[in-house]
Amino acid sequence: MYLGVDYYPDYWPEEWMEDDLEGIAGLGANMVRIGEFAWHRMEPRDGAFDFSFFDRVLEKVKKKGLRVLFGVPTATFPAWLAAKHPSILSRDETGAVRVFGGRRQYCFNSPEYRKYALRLAARLVEHYRDEPAIAAWQIDNEFGHEGSDMCYCPNCLAAFRRYLKETYGSIDRLNETWGTIFWGQTYNDFDEIPLPLPTITTHNPSLRLDWARFRSRSLNDFARALVETVRKHKGPHQAVTTNLAGGFFGKWFDHAEHAALYDFISYDQYPVWGGLAEPLAPGELAMHLDFVRGLTGKPFWIVEQLIGAQGHDMIGYLPRPGQARLWSFQSFARGCSDMLYFVWRAMNRGAEQFCTGIVDHDNVRGRKYEEARDVFRDIAPHAELLKSGIRAEVAVLYDHDNIWSWRFQPQSEAFDFPREMLRLYEPFYRLNCPMDVIPANRDFSGYKVLLVPVMQIIDAALARRLEAFVEAGGTVVFSFRAGIRNKANNLHVGVPLPGPVAD
Amino acid sequence: MYLGVDYYPDYWPEEWMEDDLEGIAGLGANMVRIGEFAWHRMEPRDGAFDFSFFDRVLEKVKKKGLRVLFGVPTATFPAWLAAKHPSILSRDETGAVRVFGGRRQYCFNSPEYRKYALRLAARLVEHYRDEPAIAAWQIDNEFGHEGSDMCYCPNCLAAFRRYLKETYGSIDRLNETWGTIFWGQTYNDFDEIPLPLPTITTHNPSLRLDWARFRSRSLNDFARALVETVRKHKGPHQAVTTNLAGGFFGKWFDHAEHAALYDFISYDQYPVWGGLAEPLAPGELAMHLDFVRGLTGKPFWIVEQLIGAQGHDMIGYLPRPGQARLWSFQSFARGCSDMLYFVWRAMNRGAEQFCTGIVDHDNVRGRKYEEARDVFRDIAPHAELLKSGIRAEVAVLYDHDNIWSWRFQPQSEAFDFPREMLRLYEPFYRLNCPMDVIPANRDFSGYKVLLVPVMQIIDAALARRLEAFVEAGGTVVFSFRAGIRNKANNLHVGVPLPGPVAD
Amino acid sequence: MYLGVDYYPDYWPEEWMEDDLEGIAGLGANMVRIGEFAWHRMEPRDGAFDFSFFDRVLEKVKKKGLRVLFGVPTATFPAWLAAKHPSILSRDETGAVRVFGGRRQYCFNSPEYRKYALRLAARLVEHYRDEPAIAAWQIDNEFGHEGSDMCYCPNCLAAFRRYLKETYGSIDRLNETWGTIFWGQTYNDFDEIPLPLPTITTHNPSLRLDWARFRSRSLNDFARALVETVRKHKGPHQAVTTNLAGGFFGKWFDHAEHAALYDFISYDQYPVWGGLAEPLAPGELAMHLDFVRGLTGKPFWIVEQLIGAQGHDMIGYLPRPGQARLWSFQSFARGCSDMLYFVWRAMNRGAEQFCTGIVDHDNVRGRKYEEARDVFRDIAPHAELLKSGIRAEVAVLYDHDNIWSWRFQPQSEAFDFPREMLRLYEPFYRLNCPMDVIPANRDFSGYKVLLVPVMQIIDAALARRLEAFVEAGGTVVFSFRAGIRNKANNLHVGVPLPGPVAD
Repeated sequence: MYLGVDYYPDYWPEEWMEDDLEGIAGLGANMVRIGEFAWHRMEPRDGAFDFSFFDRVLEKVKKKGLRVLFGVPTATFPAWLAAKHPSILSRDETGAVRVFGGRRQYCFNSPEYRKYALRLAARLVEHYRDEPAIAAWQIDNEFGHEGSDMCYCPNCLAAFRRYLKETYGSIDRLNETWGTIFWGQTYNDFDEIPLPLPTITTHNPSLRLDWARFRSRSLNDFARALVETVRKHKGPHQAVTTNLAGGFFGKWFDHAEHAALYDFISYDQYPVWGGLAEPLAPGELAMHLDFVRGLTGKPFWIVEQLIGAQGHDMIGYLPRPGQARLWSFQSFARGCSDMLYFVWRAMNRGAEQFCTGIVDHDNVRGRKYEEARDVFRDIAPHAELLKSGIRAEVAVLYDHDNIWSWRFQPQSEAFDFPREMLRLYEPFYRLNCPMDVIPANRDFSGYKVLLVPVMQIIDAALARRLEAFVEAGGTVVFSFRAGIRNKANNLHVGVPLPGPVAD
Repeated sequence: MYLGVDYYPDYWPEEWMEDDLEGIAGLGANMVRIGEFAWHRMEPRDGAFDFSFFDRVLEKVKKKGLRVLFGVPTATFPAWLAAKHPSILSRDETGAVRVFGGRRQYCFNSPEYRKYALRLAARLVEHYRDEPAIAAWQIDNEFGHEGSDMCYCPNCLAAFRRYLKETYGSIDRLNETWGTIFWGQTYNDFDEIPLPLPTITTHNPSLRLDWARFRSRSLNDFARALVETVRKHKGPHQAVTTNLAGGFFGKWFDHAEHAALYDFISYDQYPVWGGLAEPLAPGELAMHLDFVRGLTGKPFWIVEQLIGAQGHDMIGYLPRPGQARLWSFQSFARGCSDMLYFVWRAMNRGAEQFCTGIVDHDNVRGRKYEEARDVFRDIAPHAELLKSGIRAEVAVLYDHDNIWSWRFQPQSEAFDFPREMLRLYEPFYRLNCPMDVIPANRDFSGYKVLLVPVMQIIDAALARRLEAFVEAGGTVVFSFRAGIRNKANNLHVGVPLPGPVAD
Repeated sequence: MYLGVDYYPDYWPEEWMEDDLEGIAGLGANMVRIGEFAWHRMEPRDGAFDFSFFDRVLEKVKKKGLRVLFGVPTATFPAWLAAKHPSILSRDETGAVRVFGGRRQYCFNSPEYRKYALRLAARLVEHYRDEPAIAAWQIDNEFGHEGSDMCYCPNCLAAFRRYLKETYGSIDRLNETWGTIFWGQTYNDFDEIPLPLPTITTHNPSLRLDWARFRSRSLNDFARALVETVRKHKGPHQAVTTNLAGGFFGKWFDHAEHAALYDFISYDQYPVWGGLAEPLAPGELAMHLDFVRGLTGKPFWIVEQLIGAQGHDMIGYLPRPGQARLWSFQSFARGCSDMLYFVWRAMNRGAEQFCTGIVDHDNVRGRKYEEARDVFRDIAPHAELLKSGIRAEVAVLYDHDNIWSWRFQPQSEAFDFPREMLRLYEPFYRLNCPMDVIPANRDFSGYKVLLVPVMQIIDAALARRLEAFVEAGGTVVFSFRAGIRNKANNLHVGVPLPGPVAD
């Protein structure tokens, strides 16, 4: 069982490292995550690789008996790369280029970016393939977070058209599926298809769902290329993971498909964030944990567990003494097997000065230090138990086609997808009933009860599986709008509602 | 008297047409509107015209004894045209091009668009000039709706400058009228005049009113060119109309000037729309109907009468049983002579899946089918009565200069033009007093009472007519801000308020 | 002591001037401000200067025994200049060019604009250097108001990089100071540094503070060049001032540094503005007046004192009878030595038709005329008293680094900088205790009490001065977040809070 902290030795004077690692070891930790945002430190100029700093870090880390989760730092690219190839920068929904100076503002469909990112990954992993202290590689950081899964650049337009061509083969088939005859939008050629940028009223719902799927594929293809590169060069003792951010239902990628790329999945748990006056409610946190566990059905790591107040330009609720401990134990109870706290010490410069960690800016080991140490001490004896798995008889089903379809056509201003999930989830949660939150294409025959919130898109195959489940004695609970749409995001026609699940 | 439905045979498998028309005829209908969005079906490639599909439709329609309102489908242009001539796409107030994929996102001042639209209209109407079943042509669709009357493209900038040159003759006269000496904005040349795009604080109110008039002229000139083309090619038995959308006071064109282009005017009545939790109140609906009738002083058609819930991304209030009937009869009572329900069956694909019609997506003829049939049955005997006209002794006056001036200078966040109209209209409505809602340049000498809400722009001619009206025994009711501005949208100077109507 | 009005003879028929000046003299006035927005009148074509109109104005003004505050009209440039050199137009935070048609939408870093503005200033001032009636020159108008201190154009990007190069010397020093190692943003070259346009999440806080300082320097450099030009050409009897707009804490320039450019500072006092339903509270008005006086420690002029309702597209609260008098006397009581009312008569055309003055559009001298006349009559005997100065034992300290840092990182949605100022200021105000509001770098050793609201950035020098102040018996009142950041806008590290003022 790994317990530890996120540590950025590159942010601080090198001579502080000894003392920092001493403090980290004093927590009872056995792991640090490093390297996450250090592309420029590794490649300060195009092609000029230099890992000597991290060589020294690893030497020191090992002396303390710590293992390492090493970040492949493609989430933040160096300034020289943006200056040299501005086409790597993604564009927002107004068409504006997101300038250098934040993070993750690269386009997943930029061939230039992919080339540079894969080269870095190959060189880095190759360099440390024989390093026994590195237990795992973390790919990028919080893929798709903060709007970084959306881009409207020319690269994306071209790739979207290629994607549609691959998907539909002929333009006639696309026209028929999308119903472009409506409003006379029939396309003669894939090259006539627009990005769903602002128009008058709204875009075709099938186009928009395909755009969402394309966004997902763009992200997952990029991630897959990175993972494959890392797998090719890594040592056999090194695992591959990534750290998922929260806000799953507001993202444009299929999380389960993404999770399948890795040896295990990691999660960054922030029960509260900048601007929030109160943390998320326990039931919602539980559902998120069940969602993460449900991605693979296996225990997961938390590699960023909140321990102090957070925020960029706005600071959120200050966690009270013991509250981080509470959240940590809730996580262990719902599938978390290994945990790193974010962060050893908040950076005093840059955008995250208000993202506080175990040690505050005064560098004094105080209340939070003790809280983390106590959590580690108390959980460490239960490592095996945490890997024993969770057995649930109730499952909540979701799929991304539905999430995305609701997102761009909420149908009502009162609609909120996570709230609709919770509406079915929470009554069971209150009864302390173990639940899984799983994609609808997962085998659900072993459950007793299926909760199916607002699943408007249901195809014949899923309808048949649900029927079989019920015939075998299971109970299915639908909520409103179930089954009204097909996989093209279009309403069924000529059949009574709710379509394939009308029985 | 024509009663019927909007029907889009192009949206459905051709073999469904027989059954659909059977159902339509079963309503007691005698008309369908077709063709409205079918440009691509008629001209699938540049210059390659093909009307064979509609030939077949007409054949079938005639067999059922139905007549046709045929849409000239210029509201939605084909994708190939946008790809070939991107300059036809209009630009919003940020300068962003509205991409293909919605509707009506063409620029009225695009010479290319006009060329293609007129060519299509000529070919289509010529093709059916001898078709007896076609009783009328509908020009475009809901001109100016959903922001489509506003565009800030280079074509519009050049045309605006030409418009100003024509209007003012010399730049000195423009400078004097606008008062450009204020803030030192004197123009030496018409080519220095900007589009009213964002600047610091705000643009000259005269420029903005002229911009509004120019927008109106842009739309009406385009419409006139289309109407003239249709008139040139149509059969003598075929009338010409267009369908006005609601929201008159939020649009940038002179509706009465527009209405004068046609043989009769049509209206699309939606008492509720996507996102509205409640329908408009009866008094407001009445005022809108009186406004439409007041455009020509003659009975009008409703060619899209709501019968089910509506919405694009947001769905609105669900009309209760009998409510569409209620709205229909209110319309008949206020000047509607012929009525088509929107729509036979909502399209199951594309942007309007939630715009429901007589038959729902299950294709079952149910409650709404019966409601429409009963309305047709009950109103049909009264065709002559509906054409007998409405005599009112009270008139509400408005003009577009005032509407536009208030729109960009509301003077107070609490100001709402339609509400100010209603403030004077509604007390009479509650007394069931017949009223006309008419442009101020209409002869109003025959009324007993004139209601003149918030008419800040009043010129000497109107003031004299109002004086004469009062001298002849009439009563004029003004509301606040009456007469403070001249036709250049500038405050009177050197005279006591309310300017020309101070007496 | 000067008392008078803002007068725009260029806005009105020349034959009205005689009567207007008669009326102005009748107020008991001895000064008019003229020329402020008249660039086009003075240079109707590139290089074609013509001051004959103002020659005639001065002749008439002098006949009435009035003196003149003459505006150097660079706040509003002529249309021909914008057409000839579009690069002078500033760009907003979306990158959109602010079009001609408003005011002050020029870029302070445009070399073209500077060239034309300085040439105009030189020619104008040279022309009137020997004019005894001109007592003072007003530079530009309300520098930085209404967002005009912000621009994201290519000129600004290049100048920002030059500014950083000058400030830091080497890119390594910038990287170290900003902590660009965070998120791997290390710059290899100044030319890689972006404008802080939208990115994903947020920009580096040091970059943003330097951007704010650069904005300030851009404005102040431009103003300095203008002032130097005017000083070079003016007569020795002519003073130089500018008129500050309100909203100090929402602006991007250092007001005290700005104020130091002039012989005395002027202020435009608008206790209420368009859209405000209520005027600012007396305490807030007092704090603003103390702020203006505190810029130089000397009496100041008010050259635009509100007397009627104001507004561009939205009109604000209508001042009640006697309320302008009240505000005027409050101003005299807090350091105003000379006063001009805005405006003699509101322009009936252009953007400020609803900015009413002493005489309304009916051109009748009524209630407000009498109110202004009475104020002049009552205050005139106290000219010497008004120059006697104000002695305060309590001072409120602020500095712009703090204002700006809070502005882009408010840390909480409930945070409002002026409210935090008022939180400490108002209790003393309620006790009618004289106060100064002064920059923190001013000598404050003579006060008894220092109020230091939300001063998160405190450097060692200021900390030492505060310590010395306390040691000498003074009292310092801090509020929350005091001293947490250094001058690079970064959190202190390794020291207990509140950093340098922890004692």
